Amino acid sequence: MTPDHKTRLAAFLEQVWNLGDEDAVAAFVADRYTLRHDPGDPWHGQTLDQPEFRARLRAARAPFPDQRFTVRRMTAEGDTVAAAWTWQGTHRGEVGGIAPTGRRITMTGVTLYDFDEAGRITGHWQEVDRLGVYRQLAG
Amino acid sequence: MTPDHKTRLAAFLEQVWNLGDEDAVAAFVADRYTLRHDPGDPWHGQTLDQPEFRARLRAARAPFPDQRFTVRRMTAEGDTVAAAWTWQGTHRGEVGGIAPTGRRITMTGVTLYDFDEAGRITGHWQEVDRLGVYRQLAG
Repeated sequence: MTPDHKTRLAAFLEQVWNLGDEDAVAAFVADRYTLRHDPGDPWHGQTLDQPEFRARLRAARAPFPDQRFTVRRMTAEGDTVAAAWTWQGTHRGEVGGIAPTGRRITMTGVTLYDFDEAGRITGHWQEVDRLGVYRQLAG
Repeated sequence: MTPDHKTRLAAFLEQVWNLGDEDAVAAFVADRYTLRHDPGDPWHGQTLDQPEFRARLRAARAPFPDQRFTVRRMTAEGDTVAAAWTWQGTHRGEVGGIAPTGRRITMTGVTLYDFDEAGRITGHWQEVDRLGVYRQLAG
């Protein structure tokens, strides 16, 4: 299942996160999705059902409507895929109390995604360069 | 080699990073070690030889002499091991311009480590919760 997991992860990031297609969430996301290991994420430690996942997708994409994840590395074993990625987006809406700056923001991150038997993602362990983002927004 | 890589990574983190054993660097670290994907790291983007790696180890451990990495997850494929970890250390020396606070600091991170044919680590792609660390130091 490992090559398939990588392909599915790439499709999930493209369709759900890059294009913001809420209708695609049901195909990629399990009934429960748990976010771990990323203390700065507003949803850190939560387990979301699909409507909550779609709400998070909307809220996270709103300040950066043109945002794009680009996967730089993938490492897969069993039901887990680790991905190192870069992200870019233009700051068009309020985020963390900061009014839109129109700046082009870049961010890096590393995430471990877990899949269920149906090939849907049950959650992630994630770390991102949140400090770098704040510096770009405030700088 | 995958189970061996996980075992070696655990031994590297314990002996080199947790215990600060500079003599162990030669056994675990390749002649060139490249640090990627972690913009806040002072050594980000650099390729270190072994003396430079030992100097980095000394410099990074100095402010937190009792520091400890604990691996929470490992995912291995081919010559790569992805690890999600937590870290704790007591702030005993100046770091980033902040005088010692004596505070117990915690940090999370996710790292992809690459191995060569001899089972030595050639570098990493890493992301850590640097913002969380600054908030604990400044808070």
